Amino acid sequence: MPAQHPPVVLDVPIGIHATGTREETDSLGTVAVPADRYWGAQTQRSLVQFAIGEDRMPKAVYHAYGYVKKAAAIINADAGRMPRWKAELISRVADEVIAGRLDSEFPLYVWQTGSGTQSNMNVNEVIANRAIQLVDGRLGSKTPVHPNDDVNMGQSSNDTFPTAMHIAAVTAIEDHLLPALVRLHDTATRKSGEWAHVVKIGRTHLEDATPLTVGQEWSGYAAQLEDATEHLTVTAEGLYRLAMGGTAVGTGLNAPPGFAAQSAEVIAQLTGRPFVTAPNKFAAQGSLDVLVRVSAALRGVATALFKFANDLRWLGSGPRAGLHELILPANEPGSSIMPGKVNPTQAEAMLMVCVQVLGADTAVAVAGNEGNFELNAFRPVVISNVLHSVRILGDAVEHFREFLVEGVRLDRDRLRQDVERSVMMVTALSPIIGYDQASQIAHLAIDENLTLREAALRRGVSDELYERIVVPEDLTHAGVAEAR
Amino acid sequence: MPAQHPPVVLDVPIGIHATGTREETDSLGTVAVPADRYWGAQTQRSLVQFAIGEDRMPKAVYHAYGYVKKAAAIINADAGRMPRWKAELISRVADEVIAGRLDSEFPLYVWQTGSGTQSNMNVNEVIANRAIQLVDGRLGSKTPVHPNDDVNMGQSSNDTFPTAMHIAAVTAIEDHLLPALVRLHDTATRKSGEWAHVVKIGRTHLEDATPLTVGQEWSGYAAQLEDATEHLTVTAEGLYRLAMGGTAVGTGLNAPPGFAAQSAEVIAQLTGRPFVTAPNKFAAQGSLDVLVRVSAALRGVATALFKFANDLRWLGSGPRAGLHELILPANEPGSSIMPGKVNPTQAEAMLMVCVQVLGADTAVAVAGNEGNFELNAFRPVVISNVLHSVRILGDAVEHFREFLVEGVRLDRDRLRQDVERSVMMVTALSPIIGYDQASQIAHLAIDENLTLREAALRRGVSDELYERIVVPEDLTHAGVAEAR
Amino acid sequence: MPAQHPPVVLDVPIGIHATGTREETDSLGTVAVPADRYWGAQTQRSLVQFAIGEDRMPKAVYHAYGYVKKAAAIINADAGRMPRWKAELISRVADEVIAGRLDSEFPLYVWQTGSGTQSNMNVNEVIANRAIQLVDGRLGSKTPVHPNDDVNMGQSSNDTFPTAMHIAAVTAIEDHLLPALVRLHDTATRKSGEWAHVVKIGRTHLEDATPLTVGQEWSGYAAQLEDATEHLTVTAEGLYRLAMGGTAVGTGLNAPPGFAAQSAEVIAQLTGRPFVTAPNKFAAQGSLDVLVRVSAALRGVATALFKFANDLRWLGSGPRAGLHELILPANEPGSSIMPGKVNPTQAEAMLMVCVQVLGADTAVAVAGNEGNFELNAFRPVVISNVLHSVRILGDAVEHFREFLVEGVRLDRDRLRQDVERSVMMVTALSPIIGYDQASQIAHLAIDENLTLREAALRRGVSDELYERIVVPEDLTHAGVAEAR
Amino acid sequence: MPAQHPPVVLDVPIGIHATGTREETDSLGTVAVPADRYWGAQTQRSLVQFAIGEDRMPKAVYHAYGYVKKAAAIINADAGRMPRWKAELISRVADEVIAGRLDSEFPLYVWQTGSGTQSNMNVNEVIANRAIQLVDGRLGSKTPVHPNDDVNMGQSSNDTFPTAMHIAAVTAIEDHLLPALVRLHDTATRKSGEWAHVVKIGRTHLEDATPLTVGQEWSGYAAQLEDATEHLTVTAEGLYRLAMGGTAVGTGLNAPPGFAAQSAEVIAQLTGRPFVTAPNKFAAQGSLDVLVRVSAALRGVATALFKFANDLRWLGSGPRAGLHELILPANEPGSSIMPGKVNPTQAEAMLMVCVQVLGADTAVAVAGNEGNFELNAFRPVVISNVLHSVRILGDAVEHFREFLVEGVRLDRDRLRQDVERSVMMVTALSPIIGYDQASQIAHLAIDENLTLREAALRRGVSDELYERIVVPEDLTHAGVAEAR
Repeated sequence: MPAQHPPVVLDVPIGIHATGTREETDSLGTVAVPADRYWGAQTQRSLVQFAIGEDRMPKAVYHAYGYVKKAAAIINADAGRMPRWKAELISRVADEVIAGRLDSEFPLYVWQTGSGTQSNMNVNEVIANRAIQLVDGRLGSKTPVHPNDDVNMGQSSNDTFPTAMHIAAVTAIEDHLLPALVRLHDTATRKSGEWAHVVKIGRTHLEDATPLTVGQEWSGYAAQLEDATEHLTVTAEGLYRLAMGGTAVGTGLNAPPGFAAQSAEVIAQLTGRPFVTAPNKFAAQGSLDVLVRVSAALRGVATALFKFANDLRWLGSGPRAGLHELILPANEPGSSIMPGKVNPTQAEAMLMVCVQVLGADTAVAVAGNEGNFELNAFRPVVISNVLHSVRILGDAVEHFREFLVEGVRLDRDRLRQDVERSVMMVTALSPIIGYDQASQIAHLAIDENLTLREAALRRGVSDELYERIVVPEDLTHAGVAEAR
Repeated sequence: MPAQHPPVVLDVPIGIHATGTREETDSLGTVAVPADRYWGAQTQRSLVQFAIGEDRMPKAVYHAYGYVKKAAAIINADAGRMPRWKAELISRVADEVIAGRLDSEFPLYVWQTGSGTQSNMNVNEVIANRAIQLVDGRLGSKTPVHPNDDVNMGQSSNDTFPTAMHIAAVTAIEDHLLPALVRLHDTATRKSGEWAHVVKIGRTHLEDATPLTVGQEWSGYAAQLEDATEHLTVTAEGLYRLAMGGTAVGTGLNAPPGFAAQSAEVIAQLTGRPFVTAPNKFAAQGSLDVLVRVSAALRGVATALFKFANDLRWLGSGPRAGLHELILPANEPGSSIMPGKVNPTQAEAMLMVCVQVLGADTAVAVAGNEGNFELNAFRPVVISNVLHSVRILGDAVEHFREFLVEGVRLDRDRLRQDVERSVMMVTALSPIIGYDQASQIAHLAIDENLTLREAALRRGVSDELYERIVVPEDLTHAGVAEAR
Repeated sequence: MPAQHPPVVLDVPIGIHATGTREETDSLGTVAVPADRYWGAQTQRSLVQFAIGEDRMPKAVYHAYGYVKKAAAIINADAGRMPRWKAELISRVADEVIAGRLDSEFPLYVWQTGSGTQSNMNVNEVIANRAIQLVDGRLGSKTPVHPNDDVNMGQSSNDTFPTAMHIAAVTAIEDHLLPALVRLHDTATRKSGEWAHVVKIGRTHLEDATPLTVGQEWSGYAAQLEDATEHLTVTAEGLYRLAMGGTAVGTGLNAPPGFAAQSAEVIAQLTGRPFVTAPNKFAAQGSLDVLVRVSAALRGVATALFKFANDLRWLGSGPRAGLHELILPANEPGSSIMPGKVNPTQAEAMLMVCVQVLGADTAVAVAGNEGNFELNAFRPVVISNVLHSVRILGDAVEHFREFLVEGVRLDRDRLRQDVERSVMMVTALSPIIGYDQASQIAHLAIDENLTLREAALRRGVSDELYERIVVPEDLTHAGVAEAR
Repeated sequence: MPAQHPPVVLDVPIGIHATGTREETDSLGTVAVPADRYWGAQTQRSLVQFAIGEDRMPKAVYHAYGYVKKAAAIINADAGRMPRWKAELISRVADEVIAGRLDSEFPLYVWQTGSGTQSNMNVNEVIANRAIQLVDGRLGSKTPVHPNDDVNMGQSSNDTFPTAMHIAAVTAIEDHLLPALVRLHDTATRKSGEWAHVVKIGRTHLEDATPLTVGQEWSGYAAQLEDATEHLTVTAEGLYRLAMGGTAVGTGLNAPPGFAAQSAEVIAQLTGRPFVTAPNKFAAQGSLDVLVRVSAALRGVATALFKFANDLRWLGSGPRAGLHELILPANEPGSSIMPGKVNPTQAEAMLMVCVQVLGADTAVAVAGNEGNFELNAFRPVVISNVLHSVRILGDAVEHFREFLVEGVRLDRDRLRQDVERSVMMVTALSPIIGYDQASQIAHLAIDENLTLREAALRRGVSDELYERIVVPEDLTHAGVAEAR
């Protein structure tokens, strides 16, 4: 590499003041690019040739790529492969990428090459031209910063795009979704405590069953959330393993020995997260297995949320012809035609989000099967769905908590009435009088529309026994009638 | 209804010149709305309370809603329920909605109430205020056009949102996707014709098999596309059935008798599509069955496309260590690290689109299960996914055709070599010499790396017989060796 | 083909009286086969090498294969390619296959080669040996009937297995599932008629809405079933197109010209179903698109059934703390611990069946993507799932109808009470007093636990107006209050 | 509980010598049961009313239930709730259940009540009658052992069925699947070592890329398997948490305090696995979240296997017109029509199994959403699919290893030729001559069908440089050309 005098770095604000188009080149020739854009020929080709839908590669991938490019520059300079000034220049622009200040320069679609190469080249081109601008060079000249030879030095899309995917996914999960889940869990736990002694009638198969407390029911929601959150947390740790250093096919060709471990280390320093180099690059690049597992863990979160939201809307149904144990907050008029209607809209939004996550997970799983040889080339569809699921789950959890869960109240009259009218508390008598006789009492009550007490007494249960045993609060915890 | 003097309609361009906020009201109270927006209180509530992700209700749903509101106004006026001037005013604004001129006034998220009520109210509010503006009324006054009593007259979200979904979906399928599929089919058919006599070696189980022509292979792609397209076309006809007129629960309460049939008729006139009223409104509103079927038909299209794209990328693999029967166009540099690499990027984009459609279809099917009683309240997730699938399929088909299929060329040297080296043409000898002897010849050729001719002759097949029977071109159509 | 004297056909009953093993051969060598079995070397190899799980290739596939083999023999004899006596012999054994009399000779697993070749060879081997037995030949001698040269004459697994799949699937759908669906539809329609005038309160978003009749609600179930059934019927017509005649790669090599059309014709005669030859064999063999569509149509049936079963269990929930509009038949004790409990077990079984069908459909769709070149080699997993879905859907529909739907009764007291207590009938007042005032009445009623009448009167609605408008029966059909 | 004299326990072998039917009773009345069967009225009802398909509740669930019943009996006796002799009697029969000796007495279908109650009652009835037989009582008399009051003492289906599901699932995973995965992993690792220095051309996007060794490629398969196996192992630990003790709705009603922890402890002792009581019974019974996660982990295993099997079949494709780096073992004749054809049948079986597992997982996930209140009543469809996936995955892994992986050999000629002809090794020159010049060399080579060396020299690369840099073996590990 010839010695280069370090150029002077100017303090040029982001933005190119030009109109019309600029010529940019790549190995296939020359392309006209909007003159006010930093991107180059390959980005422009992709923008035209893959104008499919409106789904853009998530910005979080580019922010993550900022770390990748910065780490590579630092390591390349440390190893003497790149002049220090150039590494610093690249790092400076990478910081702009990380901060989202160049977001508008990353216009490419999700539906592009399956390796994400075009997004990697988009980053390379933008960083190169922005760096060239900062040293007063000619945009598109690739001098003194070349998108491939410099910005991409020691890298391939095949190792850096998976790396950026992992960084983006774990960041979104940890910063966006997990805190929201913890808040919802805490709210559910708090409600569970508040209602720890409010007795209600349980339901299995949707049918009346034995009693429990509202707090117990809510402890179940909290427990489901806690378990799903923990599983997501543990599973997402797989994302700390980075492919970087594997380059084209996992061997590390054109990256110096040690590059893999060093890049993970530097990225860990830059991000404050415990990234490490993936122990096997062939698996890391040939598969999407970690993200398939993470997607499943997101689906697992959705599974817990679906139950919670679904129970709330059913328990809030009514007000007159439904279950109506819960009074849901009236956040908006529910109907354009039925005045005064209140609907469980936040629950519905949550349920639909959960369904979307389930569908997205199917897409991710199918994509995960489709690796061939040294590359799984279904990466954009996977990262797009995973980041989308994280986003909508996190947002939905926040809104669900704020606009529904926090505001839920109990219809204590209804709760009490349902307990009083319940027949299934006959279960408590069963250990004493036997299942068969207890069954007869229950059928009698239902068939003749009696209270349980009335039916029990008719069948010879003593008033004293009934009074002693059929105490709703006593039936909400472990214990056998005979022992009371 | 009191007589109202028709107000003067001004020719005010779209747009509100105001800053700050405006007070709007609904049955829950007063809400501050950006003063430069037409929407009202319910839209504003939803915008805040459902800020989940970045997925907005597709604009096509609102354009479709324009037809709904216009049709209702016309019929209500015809029936004397609404003054003619008011119906014309609503129609005028509805035309602006249909034309997309008010798109920026429909900001709501997909993840909202499951009935789409908030989007219906968004339309009602925007039309009311825009109409009020046109007659120089006070925005938010609901006078002389009320969002519920006038714009929504005779309607519920529960019948109009399904109606708008159907209009939007069938329009997108017919105007966007089907033409693209026809073009791709035609291109494949043309290629099939061009290559009708180019012999190649067939492959089953990925393993060498008997020969066929390249044209035959491509006729298969064309036939798959044709069948999938036809199935989609037929299935989408279910979308012509509109729920409108069912109002809140399917009974038609608050719509006059005949409203259902009339509204379908008027919408048919306005759109030029053969809409009819759904024969059973309880099914139309309580289920999403038609859209579940349409989604499956979209998935069926994706299934055909997956095979096509997948075959092309495999047949184009190489150039040296792959199958390389096809030479795919080099649209962009394929690799950031490997110079000169050309990748099947359009095929990859298509495959990912197909995977997305499959995942979306799973979400739609799950949502389709979740109707309860008089409403399936998982509508937004369904229409969002269906319209998205239509969009990305249509776009991907166009790009796949233009940038890949049109430019595919044959590597005729490779095709010829593979045929010459093939062993499986032994099959043609089988009817004469028997399966068992033919097997021995094949194994001999493979084990000792002989040509089929060499092996056949060693095993006693006469040169004359071999010459007569093993003629690749003759083996590409029906026919038995003995009869040649 | 040398002249062969027709052997004498004996009337040997099915069964081989032998013990130990018999040597059978194929092109890879000799294999020991149980001496009392008709199958040969390839079946035996597969039985050992693919002993995966307990899933056997469905017998219906073999019955269908009986038609394939019989048709081929007839056509081959007609064309003079096979002696008449041999064709008759093969036909005779094929009839035994069709009748299920040789079922125990088809032991192979679903998880075998993706073309179903091993099942085809199983059929070939069994027919050959059974035919040999009938003419007193030596089992395993392949003389005078050879599994490949004779039984498989003019055929490949690649065209006959798809053919057998289509025959088996359409037979199961038409003979098993469709009649069951029609019966359920008719029962639902009958119930709808019986309850045509029983008013109930409607529910949207699970919340109380305006009234409809029980009969209207059930007409929705019937309509969903009808539409889903019709779509299945139409979609299943694609199964009439048979791949037979395409042989190895779709070209028809080793089948005489005309074989394709003739075989479809003969199979049509034998089965009484309108089979035709597939217009494009490359599509028919390279894809599974028809079955992917049929699977989706089965899923569509499941979607309609899910709603029906789900509504019934919710409407039957209680008896005290649920909705309990319906009284479900008590078919069995519901709980091992709660005496007298009755659960909606048939609905639950149906819902699980629907979920299974949805999962199976996902598997089928994924398999449908995976065709390569001239063959989709994911056939067994597809036919296995499709036939399984048809079977469990058909059976579940029958049991659901017999043990649940037929026995459902109404809880008329509850229905009446819910209507009386409803607030949402305020909707009928809305066209007269306006949406906003109607909203206030509704909120007043709910907040202060008033009847709708009480609230309306407090807000100034006259008793006369209320009496005239709020008549539940009148609100169950189209109509606007003002016009009453 | 009245004192009971311990009856004499006879040593009666399993089996009832009776013909015709026997009357059995439950709370709904009397049912005729086959006289030679142990089961009672509820089993018989279910057998008739749920004869849906041929899917039987897996026997592993009943074996697991044996532990449940034995543990309950032991604890009940310890607590003085049940006479010791009765507990020992129940335990003795439970041991017969565990050992599979009563398997034929458990005939019920998967498609039954969603709680598995009928299978629980089947166990209760069989144990009761078998116990009655052992003490010479009258079958069906429920004396001295009552199916509900004794065998089910302190239990509900709602806690014991989930418990049995967990025991059955974790047992199958640990005893069947995990060992098979370890064996396959070890074989892959061994192959990786054997081929550690065989250079091959890599492929990304299916296109030629830079070289790696066959051993490196196989290390990727091994690494994917290892990670998937570890994730399954960890996730399956959730199955150690047992619901038992929650009884009907999670509260533990009718079980004595401490029963939950004790039952887990006893089951742990009996099975030798570290079961513990679930920390929250409402979550354990109201959800299926653990099994949804486990199903996803099974799908994750399938994802890794899909890639492995798919790569093998592609790498083995040919022999003449495919990639043919690998020579797959010829286990059976591949075609009924093409003599001598060898197909990747074990890979195909594996791929189909993976697709089935993916579909099953979708069903499980959907079922997992559908819990309501105190019970998820979609349990049978979940355990059925999970156990099925474990079974077919385990079996497929074994067969895939034995009949495919173990026998794979290299086509070293082909591997060498592909490396020699490769163009993508130009990548190694890129750091020296720059990406752009390297691209020109690559395009020249491909366009004019030159070797890389020829093209490089034409473009001015010195022979010395080429010789030094383009050394295939050197390109299979990290390293930059300039530094060599």
